[in-house]
Amino acid sequence: MMKIYRKAILPAGFSAHGLACGLKKSRKPDLALIYSHMPARASACFTTNKIKAAPVLLTQDHLKKIDLHQAIIVNSGNANCFTGKKGLAAAERTAQIFADELGIRKESVLVNSTGIIGKQLSVNKIKNAAAELVRGLTVQGITRASRAIMTTDAFVKEVTVDLKIGNKRVRLCGIAKGAGMIAPDLATMLAFITTDANITCRALDKALKAAVARSFNCITVDGCMSTNDTVIVLANAAGENKLIDLRSSSPAGRGSRDFVHFCEALRLVCLELAQMIVRDAEGATKFIGIHVKNARNFSDARKCALAIANSNLFKTAMYGCNPNFGRVAASVGASGVAVTEKGLKIKLGPLQKKDIHVEVNLSMGSAEATVYTSDLSPEYIKINAAYN
Amino acid sequence: MMKIYRKAILPAGFSAHGLACGLKKSRKPDLALIYSHMPARASACFTTNKIKAAPVLLTQDHLKKIDLHQAIIVNSGNANCFTGKKGLAAAERTAQIFADELGIRKESVLVNSTGIIGKQLSVNKIKNAAAELVRGLTVQGITRASRAIMTTDAFVKEVTVDLKIGNKRVRLCGIAKGAGMIAPDLATMLAFITTDANITCRALDKALKAAVARSFNCITVDGCMSTNDTVIVLANAAGENKLIDLRSSSPAGRGSRDFVHFCEALRLVCLELAQMIVRDAEGATKFIGIHVKNARNFSDARKCALAIANSNLFKTAMYGCNPNFGRVAASVGASGVAVTEKGLKIKLGPLQKKDIHVEVNLSMGSAEATVYTSDLSPEYIKINAAYN
Repeated sequence: MMKIYRKAILPAGFSAHGLACGLKKSRKPDLALIYSHMPARASACFTTNKIKAAPVLLTQDHLKKIDLHQAIIVNSGNANCFTGKKGLAAAERTAQIFADELGIRKESVLVNSTGIIGKQLSVNKIKNAAAELVRGLTVQGITRASRAIMTTDAFVKEVTVDLKIGNKRVRLCGIAKGAGMIAPDLATMLAFITTDANITCRALDKALKAAVARSFNCITVDGCMSTNDTVIVLANAAGENKLIDLRSSSPAGRGSRDFVHFCEALRLVCLELAQMIVRDAEGATKFIGIHVKNARNFSDARKCALAIANSNLFKTAMYGCNPNFGRVAASVGASGVAVTEKGLKIKLGPLQKKDIHVEVNLSMGSAEATVYTSDLSPEYIKINAAYN
Repeated sequence: MMKIYRKAILPAGFSAHGLACGLKKSRKPDLALIYSHMPARASACFTTNKIKAAPVLLTQDHLKKIDLHQAIIVNSGNANCFTGKKGLAAAERTAQIFADELGIRKESVLVNSTGIIGKQLSVNKIKNAAAELVRGLTVQGITRASRAIMTTDAFVKEVTVDLKIGNKRVRLCGIAKGAGMIAPDLATMLAFITTDANITCRALDKALKAAVARSFNCITVDGCMSTNDTVIVLANAAGENKLIDLRSSSPAGRGSRDFVHFCEALRLVCLELAQMIVRDAEGATKFIGIHVKNARNFSDARKCALAIANSNLFKTAMYGCNPNFGRVAASVGASGVAVTEKGLKIKLGPLQKKDIHVEVNLSMGSAEATVYTSDLSPEYIKINAAYN
């Protein structure tokens, strides 16, 4: 039995805080810290953009260097991307500042940024706020942290899932920021998940990869891939459940019952956060689920659904409540997946509603995927055309 | 020396006509015929969309069956796509009608359609107009034909290039229709090129493939690929030049001087038409040329330029005259081409002008490509959101 809460409640052994350090001109909160009181196993997924922001490169490096991590530091207001060696030094200095302040190794600090591209990050502002940020760490502070990672988000994105592993209650808590930054802007997606589950690094990697494939990698607002996209999960074992590992795999290769349950919970956290990001998309008036079924394989199903979701002609039709089967059919054909005209069946749900369901049957196999997207409205253009 | 005219003037041995047969509710011209008085060699490029319209399938079949062709028939107002067996029969019947009327083989008629998707084509309307269309064939009729292939095009797209092959004057004449159909609509691109050049089928294929790669395949309005896109060239040899073939290749493998000249002329015709299509894009306020240089190879250069051109964030920035380097850098990184942050150089021309030039230096090799696109405006959404 899983319980889901649409707010952030930290698992055992974690605390967090968020405040304004002056990176945002608006003086809104722009610096967040999530801290595990004991060393935690970590797993992460990053943007595949070849231009990666400095904090992404640094965090990847820290994950390779040591096995246990304790802190996630995030600033909004500046992406620290396309900033060269100076940018990398700024990310490293940020890690060092919090390592010193928390009394932990530099490599156990995972650094994240979101905001304007191509502008140097003012680390002094972060340094001046570091002591206060660490002093303010509390269990309730996660709601301040989830505010401080926002950019143009209209609402905070928080979810908590409780489940039982054996006779122990275990919790996963996720916060995220979504698509869109006004000036000048990328649709950067960041998500940070904490859990007190006791789980091996490899099992955590496998669970996160599977969860992200069916959640964050199945949403699209405008098809633009950010330089900073990051999903991190920290697992500190404070829940004291029997270690979840991959060794006790069932004959079907699905892993142990505990592992399957943990995977389901993590997928739920990721899916809820991903859907919130789409619901908060810039200028969106519709929330659209595109379910592609009977595909040759998952990759085809996802590719096909993404091709429809990223078609401007489809998105504008949804905005106009225009039941345009032709645009769906053309997107399917253009996506490159295996399909025949005869086998292709398209169903469009009622378009007057805020939530729209599109079903595409490829008649080629038994795999399926659902992709979530928004419509394309004049408001999207208004937001994104604005001069920095 | 080449001469270029921005109007359609048919080469020797061709005539054309266009009229309204009632497929468009607006009663505007919707049926065009281009005819060569002698059998002509033909070459064509088609959409790679897996859902292909019936006329595309039929024309591909006719090009495979025989070597010489004489007629291009085009209807607008109905794409005859996603129409199953009945749609294919309609395309075949159209070919038979004009074969009978012109006294030629069915296979020498090349059939094309553009317009609404998923609605059966009323062949009777075409049949009723066939005799009048054939009777009206004249040299000047090409301007009527170029009007009859239009859908939401705001202006006709015509170009003529004269060149000398040996001591003979040879002509190429192209007409096209562009991106966008109001109800309901695909960005279908059709182009028909006639020439009196004497050139082998293989040389014609090679010349067309090269020309299309650097013109029609280097433009994008919204990244949506149509089910009907077609480019056809008919070469009837009436110019009586010495046969242009591929045998007399130069050591550099570029082909004979005559072949190179013909290729240049054909590329010019295709590029002019392609640029006109972008200038007439739905809701466009800007004409944007994206030049990617020092790429590893042409494929990388084109892929990178297309990734920028298809980014909604980039397109809206251009609409807003927002000099957003970050969005260009993120698109380059997301495109998957070989690049490093250090090697990437981006130049944006003045954004207040109607024509904008973007230059991207990848510092990875010596290949280059230029892609043409438009901005994304609220007007695009208004046009495409409209209910059929």
